[in-house]
Amino acid sequence: MTDRTVYFLSDGTGITAETFGNSILAQFAIKPRHVRRPFIDTVDKAHEVVREINGVAEATGQRAVVFATLVNKEVLAVVREHCQAQVLDMFGMFIVPLEEEFQLKSNHRVGRFGDAAKSQEYHERIEAINFSLAHDDGQSAKNLASADVILVGVSRSGKTPTSLYLAMQHGIKAANYPLIPEDFERGRLPDALKVYKAKCFGLTIDPDRLSQIRNERRPGSKYADFGNCRYEVAEAESMMKREGIAWLSSTHKSIEEIATTILRDIRPDRLIY
Amino acid sequence: MTDRTVYFLSDGTGITAETFGNSILAQFAIKPRHVRRPFIDTVDKAHEVVREINGVAEATGQRAVVFATLVNKEVLAVVREHCQAQVLDMFGMFIVPLEEEFQLKSNHRVGRFGDAAKSQEYHERIEAINFSLAHDDGQSAKNLASADVILVGVSRSGKTPTSLYLAMQHGIKAANYPLIPEDFERGRLPDALKVYKAKCFGLTIDPDRLSQIRNERRPGSKYADFGNCRYEVAEAESMMKREGIAWLSSTHKSIEEIATTILRDIRPDRLIY
Repeated sequence: MTDRTVYFLSDGTGITAETFGNSILAQFAIKPRHVRRPFIDTVDKAHEVVREINGVAEATGQRAVVFATLVNKEVLAVVREHCQAQVLDMFGMFIVPLEEEFQLKSNHRVGRFGDAAKSQEYHERIEAINFSLAHDDGQSAKNLASADVILVGVSRSGKTPTSLYLAMQHGIKAANYPLIPEDFERGRLPDALKVYKAKCFGLTIDPDRLSQIRNERRPGSKYADFGNCRYEVAEAESMMKREGIAWLSSTHKSIEEIATTILRDIRPDRLIY
Repeated sequence: MTDRTVYFLSDGTGITAETFGNSILAQFAIKPRHVRRPFIDTVDKAHEVVREINGVAEATGQRAVVFATLVNKEVLAVVREHCQAQVLDMFGMFIVPLEEEFQLKSNHRVGRFGDAAKSQEYHERIEAINFSLAHDDGQSAKNLASADVILVGVSRSGKTPTSLYLAMQHGIKAANYPLIPEDFERGRLPDALKVYKAKCFGLTIDPDRLSQIRNERRPGSKYADFGNCRYEVAEAESMMKREGIAWLSSTHKSIEEIATTILRDIRPDRLIY
C-alpha cells in the first residue's frame, strides 16, 4: 500500500492540514507517500496541482487521497471536479455545521494567520522565543522573575527543546536551568531558583537513555558514563521530591506531550484564553 | 458572542485539535473563549470534563462547541451522549470515508505520537534543534556543510525564530548567519558562506519595522536608527540579488509562512516523504 499518495493542499502553508491529516492517517496500518502543496490560491495553481495528482494516479494505478484546506470556492471547485482522488474538504466538513450552530456565515478568509505578523499574540510569541533563548541552560539568572516556567533537570534531560517548544507554540516564557553535580553536593537547588520554586518544573530521564544521548556528544566520558548518569538522575529526582517540585520523565514522551503536561500542571490558566 | 466557549478535548495533547479548530474558527467573526482539555483517556475523565462543559452551558445560557479527537469509543460516547454541546468528532468525520477508501479498518491508536519519542524522525527533529541552536547567529561556521538551509539577513530580520521553527516542525538543520556592516563595506558575502550559496536563503524586512524592533532592544542607538536600518536593508537586498540568493520579506509573514516558502523554494524535496 506504499503506492498510495496523500496530498495536503492549502491556500496557506498547509501545516495544519498536514499535522491533522497525519494524526488521522496514524490510525491506519499503511504508510502512504506524503506530499504537501502550499499556497494554492489561484485557479491556475489549482489546475497545475490537479495535473500533478492525476499524473501520479495514472502512473501508480491508485487514486490519491487529498486533504484540502482551501477557502476559495473556485479553487476548491477545480480540485473537487478534476482530481482523480478522494478529496476531503476539511474546511467544508466543519464550517457547514458551525454556520448552523453560530447562526452566522463564515467569511472565507484565506490562511489562518491573516495579518498575524502584526498581532499582539504573534509579538508575544517572538518575545517568548527570545526570552527562552536568552535563558537557555542557566545562561542568565536575570529576569527569571518574568519567566512563566523554569525547567530544571540534569544536562540532556530534554529541557532545551521543551523550552523552545513552549515559547514557539504557546508564547510561554520558558527558562531552563541545569542541575549539576555541584548542586547535588550542596544538596540544594541553585540559589537563583529559590524564590521561584512555584514555577519550576522538573524533567527527568531513564539513566540508560541519558547515557546513550550523552555518549553521542562525548563518547567514553565520565559525563556519559552509565554509573554517573544513574547517580545524577537519582540525586536530581530526590532533590525535586524534597523541594516539592512537580516533575515527569521525558524518556517516552514527545516534546508536545511534555509541554502539555507542564501547562496542565503548573500553568492551567494558559490552556484557556 | 463572547459567551460562547469552545472546548478542545483530546486523549492526547489536543494541540492538533486546537490548531485545526482555530483555523476553522478564524472563518467566523466571533471571538469565543477557548479551553483545551488534554489527556482525556478514561471514562471517568470524560464524565468530569462533561460536568465542566455542562456547568459552563448552564452558567452562560449558551451550549458549548466541542472539537474532539478521542480515539477511544467509550470515552467519545460519554462526551457525545452527555454534553450539552455541539460535538464535532474530528476523527470520526475523516476515518469513516478513509476506511472505505483504503478498504481497511482503523486501529484506534490513542495519541498521534505513539512511541514517537523513540522514532528516527523524532531523533532527527531533536538533532535539528541542537544544530540550529549551535549555528544561531553565525556562532559557528563548523559543520555548515551538514546544514540543510542557511538563513542570511541583517540582525533582527527574523532568522532565529525561523531557523528554530524549521528545526522543530520539520527536522530541518537550519543555520543562520547575520549580514553585518563589515560585509557591506567589503561588498561580498561572509567567506564562510561562499561555497554554500545554493542553500542560502535571505530574509529581509521593511526598514521602519526593523528600526522599531531594534529600538525595543537598544533604544536611541545607531543600530536602531531608521537611516542606518534603511542602509543595512538596501545593502543586504542588493547583495542577495548580486549573489543570486533567493529571499523574501518577513515583514507581513508569520514564521510558518516564511518556513513553508523556504522549503518550497530551496528544499521542495522536504515537502514530500
